[in-house]
Amino acid sequence: MIRKVLVANRGEIAVRIVRACRELGLASVAAHSAADRDSLAVRLADEAVQIGPGPAAASYLNIAAVVEAAKLRGADAVHPGYGFLSENADFAEVCADHGLTFVGPPAEVIEALGDKARARAAATAAGLPLLPGSREELGSEPEARAVADAVGYPVIIKAVAGGGGRGMHVVREPDGFAAAWARARATAAATFRDPRLFVERYLDSARHVEVQVLADAHGAVVHLGTRDCSLQRRHQKLVEESPAPALSEDLLRRLGEAATALARHAGYVGAGTVEFLLEPGGDFHFMEVNCRLQVEHPVTEMVTGIDLVAAQLRIAGGAPLGFTQADVRLAGTAIECRINAEDPARDFVPTPGLIEECVLPGGPFVRVDTHVHPGHRIPGFYDPLLAKVVVWAPDRPGAIARMRAALGEVRVRGRGIATTAPLLADLLDDERFRTVSHDTRLVETITADRNEVPA
Amino acid sequence: MIRKVLVANRGEIAVRIVRACRELGLASVAAHSAADRDSLAVRLADEAVQIGPGPAAASYLNIAAVVEAAKLRGADAVHPGYGFLSENADFAEVCADHGLTFVGPPAEVIEALGDKARARAAATAAGLPLLPGSREELGSEPEARAVADAVGYPVIIKAVAGGGGRGMHVVREPDGFAAAWARARATAAATFRDPRLFVERYLDSARHVEVQVLADAHGAVVHLGTRDCSLQRRHQKLVEESPAPALSEDLLRRLGEAATALARHAGYVGAGTVEFLLEPGGDFHFMEVNCRLQVEHPVTEMVTGIDLVAAQLRIAGGAPLGFTQADVRLAGTAIECRINAEDPARDFVPTPGLIEECVLPGGPFVRVDTHVHPGHRIPGFYDPLLAKVVVWAPDRPGAIARMRAALGEVRVRGRGIATTAPLLADLLDDERFRTVSHDTRLVETITADRNEVPA
Repeated sequence: MIRKVLVANRGEIAVRIVRACRELGLASVAAHSAADRDSLAVRLADEAVQIGPGPAAASYLNIAAVVEAAKLRGADAVHPGYGFLSENADFAEVCADHGLTFVGPPAEVIEALGDKARARAAATAAGLPLLPGSREELGSEPEARAVADAVGYPVIIKAVAGGGGRGMHVVREPDGFAAAWARARATAAATFRDPRLFVERYLDSARHVEVQVLADAHGAVVHLGTRDCSLQRRHQKLVEESPAPALSEDLLRRLGEAATALARHAGYVGAGTVEFLLEPGGDFHFMEVNCRLQVEHPVTEMVTGIDLVAAQLRIAGGAPLGFTQADVRLAGTAIECRINAEDPARDFVPTPGLIEECVLPGGPFVRVDTHVHPGHRIPGFYDPLLAKVVVWAPDRPGAIARMRAALGEVRVRGRGIATTAPLLADLLDDERFRTVSHDTRLVETITADRNEVPA
Repeated sequence: MIRKVLVANRGEIAVRIVRACRELGLASVAAHSAADRDSLAVRLADEAVQIGPGPAAASYLNIAAVVEAAKLRGADAVHPGYGFLSENADFAEVCADHGLTFVGPPAEVIEALGDKARARAAATAAGLPLLPGSREELGSEPEARAVADAVGYPVIIKAVAGGGGRGMHVVREPDGFAAAWARARATAAATFRDPRLFVERYLDSARHVEVQVLADAHGAVVHLGTRDCSLQRRHQKLVEESPAPALSEDLLRRLGEAATALARHAGYVGAGTVEFLLEPGGDFHFMEVNCRLQVEHPVTEMVTGIDLVAAQLRIAGGAPLGFTQADVRLAGTAIECRINAEDPARDFVPTPGLIEECVLPGGPFVRVDTHVHPGHRIPGFYDPLLAKVVVWAPDRPGAIARMRAALGEVRVRGRGIATTAPLLADLLDDERFRTVSHDTRLVETITADRNEVPA
């Protein structure tokens, strides 16, 4: 049993975890950087402990500091949230070494699925369809180019240690391969301290569809349906919805079964997400597994009624799942929009600063997950997510109308601060999104249009 | 069809109605007093029109001003919200006379059910159980005393024109009857401009259980389950939940059937609520019908997934209900807490003033309906409701835990401002509430205890 949880994250997700702890009767400790000293998570948690200065490398990514804080405060578990140390197998192992329950899958599962080459092998073994590409990491540029030639252009070069949309390079013509390879290798080495790469066919027109999985430590595995996260900019999701729209019952079932098959094969424990690329014809291809809570988990919560963070904490404490696949009922449609402190008119430059006015939407079937409020200073150190606005409605047009109304209510003001809310509204208004004839390129198309005509 | 709705109310419910209009693609006009010039509803509505100075009698209760505003702005419908003109048959009739769709039942239905004597007669005719008491209004004190003697003490004297918990006087002994009668008569004359009274047996231990009804103009009538609103102070609800807890399936079914029988009998159209008193043994007695949206409607929305304000607007526009009783599914438990700007430690004195800091809860399965934000000045003219915090969970203990956590997040600060949030937290912690062994006296008991020990 868990009794006290160190929250090793910041922003809205730290608040989210603190809330779940409180509802479950678990004590919470907010581990925070100096820059987040006055944050909402710090205020709401039972305790707070400073783990280092503002830059994440010195605080939220500092394994020794986080573990020391947990031991110092008598925490018996650590919830890593998303990003930062959430998919760091070393961190999970160090936690275990110190008698701390890591709220996530076992270190060896993170390691196996975090390595894209091993994940592809596992997916193949579990019977999942994969895009043509290299089965293992590629030793040299000529070897890689041979694979690219074999699968056909365009191809995408990915870092074996990448994930969450980072470390990917699309190559459209054989001519560009050598330069892209060199760039990808340098980026991978710098970003992940692991220069290994692999190559896959790149789909120009595809939707990003993922499946939420929950597995307990006793072998029970269920999925909680799909999410469509095709509205992305540079592989960063902007809008997500559940269920993935306009898919047949049969396709939804096969996606769910593929995800649980892989989770079973990998010995997964906790909440995880299996990501797929979906072609217009209905073929889908395994992409990667995220061994953590997703930013977009609320849309799944709203259509299932299941609290995913509470489930994570219960599973980490050794509790059985307590329900079966047949008990999972999906109702209606949920959509999430990420309100970022970025200026879409200036190539999404982050806009840190002091929030002077902050009125976020509310009312029926509207959920807001945020850590900001008037007087909050958006630090420049971290990702620019200010708030997640999530809505539910009995059907997709209703959910779109509700989100559109909710976005119109967003009012976050301060010197130099801009948000993505107006862009999100444009995305929701777009006919291609409304008719589900969009793919992962829609955001690029729209932002290109916007930038042609200065606002 | 409705195209433009005048919102003849203020505060959170005005915001609620504006939101529903926007989602349905209807234009909205916020009719507001001078005191509410800078309100959130005014900001969010498509248009705004000032209908008079601060005091409600000169603005929100001024029928001529409201109707004129609607005509001036080209509205074709008026939504009265709750309170103010929402159950005023004259207003409904004047709207009809001016070609305005009144979003509520027909004037004659409001008139029939608003008159408590006629409502009791209708309930009897529809086969509903009633508490022993006078069938009609009572002409004189001796006549009333004879009824009281016949039904047995304690009795309650109610105003025929009363409602919403106003105009009620409990008499415990025959000795006190004459004085109570005189007081009740004077109050009724002053408050409702109608001195008529009637007498009923008073139940010392009872729960307040009500049933939400929806009826269209084509004869379809459904109920959306029960709400328990037993946590009241001076007949004003503080905490409400859906469904009413710890009742058998059979009892819930009979309550629903009783409510729909009365709605059918009365020719009800729109959203309405049939209120009952429930005795510990399971006997229930008709109390009154509220011919309008209730403050506590969100708990019903959260367990049914049905947007009641949207349903009201569709029904007012002539649309059929579009679903049957069999389609209504109730899932989980929802609880609402009313955060009032009142000081429980000083006998609930209202605390108007400038809100300097305002952080309200959020996150999974938490809904906040509010019109306040930092910089909002709480006027002294109106009821003190600041925000409704509503939560949902798969079961009642989960909903209580969630609400308890949410209440702990409420932070509304400003010079002289106090809120009911700490009292609400005490209510949720109370063992009697948790075990559903409470009745309508619990709030009194708790506030009496609190006032003995100064905080």
